Amino acid sequence: MTDVIRRQVEEANTAFYQALESLDLDAMADVWEASARSACVHPGSPWYLGWAEVRRGFEVIFEGTPYIEFEIADVEVRVEDPTAWVTCVERVTGPDGRVAELVATNAFVLGADGWKMVLHHASEVVRPASLGA
Amino acid sequence: MTDVIRRQVEEANTAFYQALESLDLDAMADVWEASARSACVHPGSPWYLGWAEVRRGFEVIFEGTPYIEFEIADVEVRVEDPTAWVTCVERVTGPDGRVAELVATNAFVLGADGWKMVLHHASEVVRPASLGA
Repeated sequence: MTDVIRRQVEEANTAFYQALESLDLDAMADVWEASARSACVHPGSPWYLGWAEVRRGFEVIFEGTPYIEFEIADVEVRVEDPTAWVTCVERVTGPDGRVAELVATNAFVLGADGWKMVLHHASEVVRPASLGA
Repeated sequence: MTDVIRRQVEEANTAFYQALESLDLDAMADVWEASARSACVHPGSPWYLGWAEVRRGFEVIFEGTPYIEFEIADVEVRVEDPTAWVTCVERVTGPDGRVAELVATNAFVLGADGWKMVLHHASEVVRPASLGA
């Protein structure tokens, strides 16, 4: 993978978190591929499938969130042209000052307008690994 | 996307859940790409990065799990050759009979040995969407 491609994907990933922090739905729309295959999980949420649901999910969150801050760490970029996926850690500070540690998968596809997000899956780190039941 | 490719990815996804249900580490190893980019999140867990950590994560879970059953629903397959990603819902029944509803992202890359998993991210559905803080 060239450094150029890696940097492009990192920039797309950073733009996503900037849109989240700025609570800016237009900026978020610029990050995403507005297609039927867009898919998103927020911490504890079910799947939002397709851009209309994904967009509506961000809209509801942004309306209910006066302030949020993201510190992103451990960013790992993997590329299999024209797809890239990023794993990272999100340290999120909410309006009440509580800090949560989340893990995130972010997937992107390269199109005519550059790397566009097709999947975001975030979950809170709360306990040792189990299969969930 | 041809039906043949879709079926291949669905089969790889099914093989993953069969390995989980059978608590069989060798079957799990057959599903995964044993590489540095392999990455896994179990419900509530941090990232396990690289095949050694991913494998160890399954080993610990399998040792502590006498029985587990997976019902997989809402499987959506997306392909950008040579990468594919699957979103689905896991209804997991544990040894105590408790049923948990999880959402999962599963990513695969096509290699000489067929579609191999490079990422699994599962999280429990517990509450309405929020940014986690």
